[in-house]
Amino acid sequence: MRESARKTLERFRELVKTIKMYDEAAGVLYWDMRTMAPRGGLEARSEVVGFLSGERFRLAVSPEMGACLEELSVPEVFGELDLVNRRLVEECRKVYERNRKIPPERHREYATLTAQAEAVWEEAKDRGDFAMFRPHLEKIVAFLREFADCWGYEGHRYNALIEEYEPGMTVDQLDGVFALLKERLVPLVREIGQAPRKPDASFLKRRYDEQKQLEFSRFILREMGYDFGAGRLDRSVHPFAIGLNPRDVRITTNFRENDFQFSLFSSMHEGGHALYEQNIAPELAGTVLCDGASLGIHESQSRFWENMIGRSLPFWRRYFPDLKRQFPAELGDVGLDDFYRAINVVQPSLIRIEADEVTYNLHVLVRYELEKALFSGDLAVADLPEAWNGKYRDYLGVVPSHDGEGVLQDVHWSGGSFGYFPTYTLGNLYAAQFARALRRAMPDLDDRLSRGELGPIREWLGGEIHRHGRLFTPDELVRRVTGEEMNPRYLAEYFEQKFRPIYGLE
Amino acid sequence: MRESARKTLERFRELVKTIKMYDEAAGVLYWDMRTMAPRGGLEARSEVVGFLSGERFRLAVSPEMGACLEELSVPEVFGELDLVNRRLVEECRKVYERNRKIPPERHREYATLTAQAEAVWEEAKDRGDFAMFRPHLEKIVAFLREFADCWGYEGHRYNALIEEYEPGMTVDQLDGVFALLKERLVPLVREIGQAPRKPDASFLKRRYDEQKQLEFSRFILREMGYDFGAGRLDRSVHPFAIGLNPRDVRITTNFRENDFQFSLFSSMHEGGHALYEQNIAPELAGTVLCDGASLGIHESQSRFWENMIGRSLPFWRRYFPDLKRQFPAELGDVGLDDFYRAINVVQPSLIRIEADEVTYNLHVLVRYELEKALFSGDLAVADLPEAWNGKYRDYLGVVPSHDGEGVLQDVHWSGGSFGYFPTYTLGNLYAAQFARALRRAMPDLDDRLSRGELGPIREWLGGEIHRHGRLFTPDELVRRVTGEEMNPRYLAEYFEQKFRPIYGLE
Repeated sequence: MRESARKTLERFRELVKTIKMYDEAAGVLYWDMRTMAPRGGLEARSEVVGFLSGERFRLAVSPEMGACLEELSVPEVFGELDLVNRRLVEECRKVYERNRKIPPERHREYATLTAQAEAVWEEAKDRGDFAMFRPHLEKIVAFLREFADCWGYEGHRYNALIEEYEPGMTVDQLDGVFALLKERLVPLVREIGQAPRKPDASFLKRRYDEQKQLEFSRFILREMGYDFGAGRLDRSVHPFAIGLNPRDVRITTNFRENDFQFSLFSSMHEGGHALYEQNIAPELAGTVLCDGASLGIHESQSRFWENMIGRSLPFWRRYFPDLKRQFPAELGDVGLDDFYRAINVVQPSLIRIEADEVTYNLHVLVRYELEKALFSGDLAVADLPEAWNGKYRDYLGVVPSHDGEGVLQDVHWSGGSFGYFPTYTLGNLYAAQFARALRRAMPDLDDRLSRGELGPIREWLGGEIHRHGRLFTPDELVRRVTGEEMNPRYLAEYFEQKFRPIYGLE
Repeated sequence: MRESARKTLERFRELVKTIKMYDEAAGVLYWDMRTMAPRGGLEARSEVVGFLSGERFRLAVSPEMGACLEELSVPEVFGELDLVNRRLVEECRKVYERNRKIPPERHREYATLTAQAEAVWEEAKDRGDFAMFRPHLEKIVAFLREFADCWGYEGHRYNALIEEYEPGMTVDQLDGVFALLKERLVPLVREIGQAPRKPDASFLKRRYDEQKQLEFSRFILREMGYDFGAGRLDRSVHPFAIGLNPRDVRITTNFRENDFQFSLFSSMHEGGHALYEQNIAPELAGTVLCDGASLGIHESQSRFWENMIGRSLPFWRRYFPDLKRQFPAELGDVGLDDFYRAINVVQPSLIRIEADEVTYNLHVLVRYELEKALFSGDLAVADLPEAWNGKYRDYLGVVPSHDGEGVLQDVHWSGGSFGYFPTYTLGNLYAAQFARALRRAMPDLDDRLSRGELGPIREWLGGEIHRHGRLFTPDELVRRVTGEEMNPRYLAEYFEQKFRPIYGLE
């Protein structure tokens, strides 16, 4: 490599490192605001987080970054880079180019708009008043249409938005995914609804002491291989996981004393995210590749642990006795099979974040179809509530009594996160497909689970997925791990094989 | 004000605000590292803190800051500024000029040296091996001599170092202070040592449950007026207070189950610092004037609450019954007067941070005399241990058995903090002088204390001292509050009036 290119590479790596340092600082402040900070200081703190994010953004689109990228993208230079540096250049170039295409003043106007919109959304949701939120949402959609046109896309305009969250994913692919899921899940959910033999889940609503719940979550997290020497578990209003660096990956949970499932399964979910971040290869630390391959791939890790492990029968063969010891009064009269069936109740409902494993994807389907129509121009913001309610009736058989439990229920749109929802279902798809590959590599998986041998599972995930961070695109990663491209059939099969027996169907 | 000056002022205020945002971010990370962060992530986190501090420093000495300061310092512009802006310009100019005088490469070398020196010091202290630390300390002293000569000073070279921590303070003044203290405290401590009637403090070494200690500290902090809606209390190895912004001022404590005094009095001490930061006027928030007037003035607030309130008889008239209720088994057989005498034992010892209220100042005296001699050239680093041991023998009547409990006991010198120690004793002096002014304004102070009326005391401190932040120099502030210049007589009198009766002298 020529001396000047070598120097540029060095300078580029410094820029990347600085960007990650801003991320890490903003991450600590974010975590602190949600877990520790006194209310009094939050206003000033928000401004500091905004400042750090702004500095990060400024660097990512700086002329200096542009000059580095230009020089490193020259074919004879690029060709000499190793894989990590090539991917770093690609990642940074993508962010640089996308953002340079938006006029800075439009960017600022949009940032102001979304900052205001969240507060308006919150009040509108509480009041169930869509009309109140509608003008803001109309402006946000208009901005994003404009931005999508600046960014450019092939095929559907919505592709330009999806790209932000799931690189390479397109409407064409998602249409296929959701068509198959609709075709197989809508009837499955209907059949389940009519099944004569329904689980009794009432014992999950008994009073479960918070401290004991916390202890059990910690125990399971340790069993999963979550490293408490490189993380911690705290309480926040909404559970989340945050990777500050690979040796400091924190998770939060919350407790509902009358809902045993909430804290444990949200801990396993966030624990799945955290295992990903804790096991990214050290050489990617301090770079923008120290991250998940995409939101969907990240979600696959949380869903895998939460549902495919945490809501499986073999897992509870091993851990149910421990759980009963922790809650002898609450679970003393409950058998393993009844417990397993109770934590796997499928029941259409109105609120996505409270949905079970199966119907969850129908909640996402509704949002996907609406977002796509908003960006193709087939649907006006004004018509959203009606379209929302119609799709809930058709796919889930339930209808919101007001918009607060309908079209206003999610925060995402107020922040302009269109194209984000599909990644939740992609997470489930990837998880099912990865699980199938794992089962192929480890035919005695269920026996191991029944013995609590979670170590080899985490190691397989670590070697196949975690260590690569963002080094491969989701598509590349799925092919590497499973030998084929993403296929929604595996999720549908997993659901059928799991839930038909639970509900005594066929 | 001319348009161009108005614009410069605006830009200057933006720079100041940005500097404070870096401070706040670095502050959150610092607090997190000492209270919450898993060990694994600390190494990467240190680098981020270093980066944020570096960016702050870069801004403070940037050509843009220089240009703003130059324009705002033109007499006709400066004359039109209000008090806050004038003081901001002065503060920033001082930092700018001091740092611009040091060649950047020398600054970097020094930063590297001190970063390494702390780890070396820590090991040397554990081994009691001064020779191991000596080469680093010699280099640090050489650097600081060079820097002091760059910064410039009148009179003693050590003045240039003191200026960093206690603006305006000089060797001439400190010589007077310490001469008086030596003259009155050395004999007082000797008399106390020979007093026939010594307090029995053995009950303070009983086992005090940590959780109950924590509850009592919280109770006393609330009584002091510490606002838990704008702060929090956690555990860290060494207690500290940190003001992130006036609505988020956190304190930490630690527990020694066999030493009742440690946690409560360190909480009151840090609480005193925190009351200062919580009550700085809102218009100073987000500026470099949102800080204490100096380290000495800050320490006066902590020492006031810890010793002059927290170790006073009237205070415990009100709170001792509460304390006995909290620890009925441990303190049931103890009377108020015995308790008061026990928490006021004066006993020469080797370690500064464990010293009582009186002898503490003799520990500082030793350090002051040694630092002064190091910078006048009268003492070589190599001769420090012998000089240290000699002064401990002369002033305190005790001699370290090895350098780990002698010359190596404090972290300060390894970080280059020469000129810092005197501010501890200045804090005690200011506190005694402020207490005298408070007593003048509130002649029934003891009665109020006996009734637990701490509110008016905090309000007086808030109005006279806290709200001004760093708007006045220590000297200006002392004159405003007490009507005269700093006078060490009040501290000596306070000690004599308090401790002679406790020890039954005269």
